[in-house]
Amino acid sequence: MDHSKDHLQELQRGVVEVFPDGHPTDQPLDCLWHRLKTCDRPLRIKLGIDPTGSDVHLGHSIVLRKLRQFQDAGHCAVLIMGDFTAQIGDPTGKSDVRRQLTPEDVQANVKTYLEQVRPILDFDTPDRLEICYNSEWLSQLNLSKILNLLSTMTVGQMLAKEGFSERYGKGNPIFLHEFLYPLMQGYDSVAIEADVELGGTDQKFNIAVGRDLQRHFQRSPQFGLLMPILPGTDGIQKMSKSLGNYVALTESAVSMYSKLEKVPDGVINQYLELLTDLPLEDLPPNPRDRQKLLALEVVGQYHGRELAQQTQRELAAIVTQGAMAQAESLPEFSLGDLTFPLKISYLISQTKLCSSSSEARRQIKGGGVRLNGEKVMDPDLAIAEGTDIIGQVLQVGKKKFIRFVP
Amino acid sequence: MDHSKDHLQELQRGVVEVFPDGHPTDQPLDCLWHRLKTCDRPLRIKLGIDPTGSDVHLGHSIVLRKLRQFQDAGHCAVLIMGDFTAQIGDPTGKSDVRRQLTPEDVQANVKTYLEQVRPILDFDTPDRLEICYNSEWLSQLNLSKILNLLSTMTVGQMLAKEGFSERYGKGNPIFLHEFLYPLMQGYDSVAIEADVELGGTDQKFNIAVGRDLQRHFQRSPQFGLLMPILPGTDGIQKMSKSLGNYVALTESAVSMYSKLEKVPDGVINQYLELLTDLPLEDLPPNPRDRQKLLALEVVGQYHGRELAQQTQRELAAIVTQGAMAQAESLPEFSLGDLTFPLKISYLISQTKLCSSSSEARRQIKGGGVRLNGEKVMDPDLAIAEGTDIIGQVLQVGKKKFIRFVP
Repeated sequence: MDHSKDHLQELQRGVVEVFPDGHPTDQPLDCLWHRLKTCDRPLRIKLGIDPTGSDVHLGHSIVLRKLRQFQDAGHCAVLIMGDFTAQIGDPTGKSDVRRQLTPEDVQANVKTYLEQVRPILDFDTPDRLEICYNSEWLSQLNLSKILNLLSTMTVGQMLAKEGFSERYGKGNPIFLHEFLYPLMQGYDSVAIEADVELGGTDQKFNIAVGRDLQRHFQRSPQFGLLMPILPGTDGIQKMSKSLGNYVALTESAVSMYSKLEKVPDGVINQYLELLTDLPLEDLPPNPRDRQKLLALEVVGQYHGRELAQQTQRELAAIVTQGAMAQAESLPEFSLGDLTFPLKISYLISQTKLCSSSSEARRQIKGGGVRLNGEKVMDPDLAIAEGTDIIGQVLQVGKKKFIRFVP
Repeated sequence: MDHSKDHLQELQRGVVEVFPDGHPTDQPLDCLWHRLKTCDRPLRIKLGIDPTGSDVHLGHSIVLRKLRQFQDAGHCAVLIMGDFTAQIGDPTGKSDVRRQLTPEDVQANVKTYLEQVRPILDFDTPDRLEICYNSEWLSQLNLSKILNLLSTMTVGQMLAKEGFSERYGKGNPIFLHEFLYPLMQGYDSVAIEADVELGGTDQKFNIAVGRDLQRHFQRSPQFGLLMPILPGTDGIQKMSKSLGNYVALTESAVSMYSKLEKVPDGVINQYLELLTDLPLEDLPPNPRDRQKLLALEVVGQYHGRELAQQTQRELAAIVTQGAMAQAESLPEFSLGDLTFPLKISYLISQTKLCSSSSEARRQIKGGGVRLNGEKVMDPDLAIAEGTDIIGQVLQVGKKKFIRFVP
């Protein structure tokens, strides 16, 4: 295992909470970071997956990326496919989320899932990835063992769980079998002998149940490592398919890029921290530049650097063309009074989009001038004839446009 | 099946509640009594037993006697031995009641149990008794079926159960596995296809769960028939071994008789109704006579009529001897002044235990006079010589004694 300073720093990046959080010198075994530095074998890092067949999105990618970091540091990622739960569905038939799936459904979903996460995880290095199906051990549980599992917790503890407490408080029914799900998830940790379980902050209770059950079965309890829940592209609610504010890992580069370059200012930094490896000290000051950097980086992860850059270029053009489409109703500037050839900076000053030729030169050097969507690079660019540019759109900055007319 | 008026009356005797309690003409299928009159096959009458090895006592005998009445009317008693639960014990290890038993323990307890209830149930008529072990079906339940069972109820419904609600209200822990026990008992009804389940009033919830589960599994739901919980021989708390206020079915005739003839006035009638078949209209008016009748009847059920009567006689003598032992310190009456022979009624008037000879005659006729513990029957009984009775104890009523001295 490699726990150089870099790896440790990488593993700690974006983490909301690790528990238990004993101080490394007081109770070294209770501190994950200390444990990582001193362990003499690869740890087993658990991540549970519901093979429900829905798109994996950037929200899910956060824990997967963390899992990859553990792989890179030499540990073993253990992906647990919750095929057992998927195949029984919700016994009350009331939940759409827990629709009952056939074994074939589950197999198909697992396949799709693995295809989606292939760009994130290391599938190739030996002993760094295990894929398990929890039906393997859960289908073996009989009533006696289940009573034993249930006996480890009280009704009060279960009702204190977020979600349950609210529903119970409101008088909404909680069906008894729902109490078994956290215990089943916890028992997965026993079965695969997890050393660490990863999850979103909403998984704290379930991961803690796993610790309790491991202790109950005389195993060493796992660490819990919680990552934030990613806000969606609306910047408000958590990323979720049903809210339509998500970016799926399988989206095209264009779709992914165009969503990410519009992520609201308030969440850009969180996106950069959680979805990229970019050093956070070195980010460009301008939020627009951060958006583009984010989009380029993330698209690069799933579609390769080259396609990401190409997409960035193409989309910039499309954006301008879009603006041009709007330009049908733009202010017009008549070329009739001008004498050609002339320099573009002079032309711009004549349109009044800049106050002077020198102001126009500055804008061009700053990359703020486009002619028909193409960035103008040379302030001395000569326009030979007025007819060369009739119908074209001149853009200065984000918002100032004119169209040339005869 | 025999549902003559007598049988129906017998079956209804002492019953606290039958549910559902639909009116026989409105919803004939929802009324047990109507169902009994119209059914064309023997019904399966369920009684669940915990083979914990403790003494069966008269409190338990109430439902067993009811079960026997169903047998006598042609139905099939299905005794369910809860061997599964007994063998797993209480997973928390906190309950003495649910001590974990080996299969051998359970077998031994079942044997002892059947020996104890043999005087009550009909073991001999074919097709009127089935003995089942619930491990047969409960050990076959897997996680999927158990989730299904659990999904039939909500946390709120379970917490509304007597016992649970109090503990939850007080903040005392309720362990999750405890929620499974009512469902396991209910599933027994599904497994044995019970038509009726008998129980004490404390079993209403569990029996109702059985109905729900039968419906859930598309079976016809059972009727619940609830019998009272018998107060102990203290007349206050419910009969229970731990309170020491119980009469075990295996107690000797003497022990059983002596406990029953002292049952407090407030509960005699309930005992007579629930523990005997005596017609309640014809009971003797005097509570003392009712106690003796009760003791004679119940001892007769478990030890035979003859031994019961013998015990009654012997105990009467012992009681008097006991009184006589106390009599060492009794007031003395000197025979020195009297002229013999004389009639006993005159003698009694002289002792002042009665105010006159005629009062003494009345007491004798009423059975209230004993000489050395033997009831005096003849008011004209002649005492030939004073020496015949020197040292003997004369008793009038319950509390007046004198000893004859020279």
